[in-house]
Amino acid sequence: MFKRLCIIGIGLIGGSIAKAVRAEGLCQQVVALGREKNLPNMQRALELGVVDAVYTDAAQAMAGTDCVIICTPVGSMQAIFAQLKPYWNPQAIYSDAGSTKGSVVEAARAVFGEVPSNFVPAHPIAGAERSGVEAAMADLYRNRRVIVTPLPNTDPQAADKLSELWQRIGASVSVMTVEHHDTVLAATSHLPHILAFALVGMLGRKDEQREIFKYAAGGFKDFSRIASSDPTMWQDICLANKQEIIPLIQQFQTELGQFERMLQADDAQALFDAFSYAKQARQRFLETFDDPT
Amino acid sequence: MFKRLCIIGIGLIGGSIAKAVRAEGLCQQVVALGREKNLPNMQRALELGVVDAVYTDAAQAMAGTDCVIICTPVGSMQAIFAQLKPYWNPQAIYSDAGSTKGSVVEAARAVFGEVPSNFVPAHPIAGAERSGVEAAMADLYRNRRVIVTPLPNTDPQAADKLSELWQRIGASVSVMTVEHHDTVLAATSHLPHILAFALVGMLGRKDEQREIFKYAAGGFKDFSRIASSDPTMWQDICLANKQEIIPLIQQFQTELGQFERMLQADDAQALFDAFSYAKQARQRFLETFDDPT
Repeated sequence: MFKRLCIIGIGLIGGSIAKAVRAEGLCQQVVALGREKNLPNMQRALELGVVDAVYTDAAQAMAGTDCVIICTPVGSMQAIFAQLKPYWNPQAIYSDAGSTKGSVVEAARAVFGEVPSNFVPAHPIAGAERSGVEAAMADLYRNRRVIVTPLPNTDPQAADKLSELWQRIGASVSVMTVEHHDTVLAATSHLPHILAFALVGMLGRKDEQREIFKYAAGGFKDFSRIASSDPTMWQDICLANKQEIIPLIQQFQTELGQFERMLQADDAQALFDAFSYAKQARQRFLETFDDPT
Repeated sequence: MFKRLCIIGIGLIGGSIAKAVRAEGLCQQVVALGREKNLPNMQRALELGVVDAVYTDAAQAMAGTDCVIICTPVGSMQAIFAQLKPYWNPQAIYSDAGSTKGSVVEAARAVFGEVPSNFVPAHPIAGAERSGVEAAMADLYRNRRVIVTPLPNTDPQAADKLSELWQRIGASVSVMTVEHHDTVLAATSHLPHILAFALVGMLGRKDEQREIFKYAAGGFKDFSRIASSDPTMWQDICLANKQEIIPLIQQFQTELGQFERMLQADDAQALFDAFSYAKQARQRFLETFDDPT
């Protein structure tokens, strides 16, 4: 599909794209571009055979490259657009894998004035609790969803070609607006992460006083798994999408207040109804989740 | 160890005790006692070979029984104590598997005046998201913790014998006061369940308006797993331990408020610190969890 794919940020997400694209034979060459301080990680990617070459110089990395996917934390996007600008190739396709889309579009606008028509914002929804190129897997995106959020001026051919790339490595592509993406992900991903971080932090302080983790069960292990996510990545996501996240935190506070009132009032029926509704809702989610096509 | 063990409430928890005890050859006979309306479930247990006999009549069930373990939702404990009272055998050992201990002790006190010295309150900490005797497993308690909460007047020999039973089916026994148990479990289990039920309920209502579950990832699947727990069981637990749970809900509201303020203030450093602390705390939990001995 492409002559040369350049991944910027060769961790779990970028490394898995590289591995999948190579496994499917979709690009003649896959290379990585990163900063000096990421050189050890990039060299590890080279040793592992995830990429064919690594660069810290954008000019060299961009020479002959016809597809670029930015897979760094969303807070670094603006700096990367600025680094790419002098070598921007109107014939190439550019995309990203950021968990927030409004902030990425804003970063592109800050650098280019108007978002280039060959930049297609996208977000693969795949687990990222582990990190680093060592964790990269060729099948990370198999049966997973990728949301593509083209802008009104996005070149439809560029968007189609990017979608095809994702489909050919096994993903199911959904198209929606930037705004809808950020609203949905705030609810299904960003708020749950904040709740998990907040709870585990609160219990961690209690545990320092008097051991409690010792008596936690498997349910807590699953519930708290996302609190092991990368702090830098999540600091960036939360700030980038705070306009959506803050109202959800407030709604959740109201929700919790209702549970508090049910307990105060010994309202067994209301608790039963609320728990039953949630159990059914989760069942609906599971039915959706198990078949993402 | 016992001639005849009687399980009251032969679901996942009770059925797994029965299977384990039989697998280890610790009792000559294992029987179940339940209400008329639970007869189909008890007959299923009989068919599956989980128990040797089932009864709806307490007099028959108690004849020759020297160990009784009550495995019903905690809200039903008082009715069960009342049912057992006429046949209470001072030579037998009685225990339970309830997730709250203060409420169980209170229920015993309401029926007997003073809690009988041969009743040993206990709580096996083992996953219970699935339910029913079909889900019962002989190794459910292997490498899991069981908390035994004897009272000042509890017969030490009864407590020791009950602990031995749990140890012989693979569990690691911790002894603590009723109050400490209820404080710890409110934090590590009851609050997380309320958060999961509250979030999944809130998102479920959003999903009815506009599909969002479709775009949730594996992290959400794990985080929300405990929202699939049994509503009746959790209604009982939450009401039984509301004195501990309500202050935790309030603390969690304060905690969430702090995250809201960090977002409002764009305080990247504070978010990073909070997320990093939580990630480390979870690591500490995992190290404890993987080795419960």
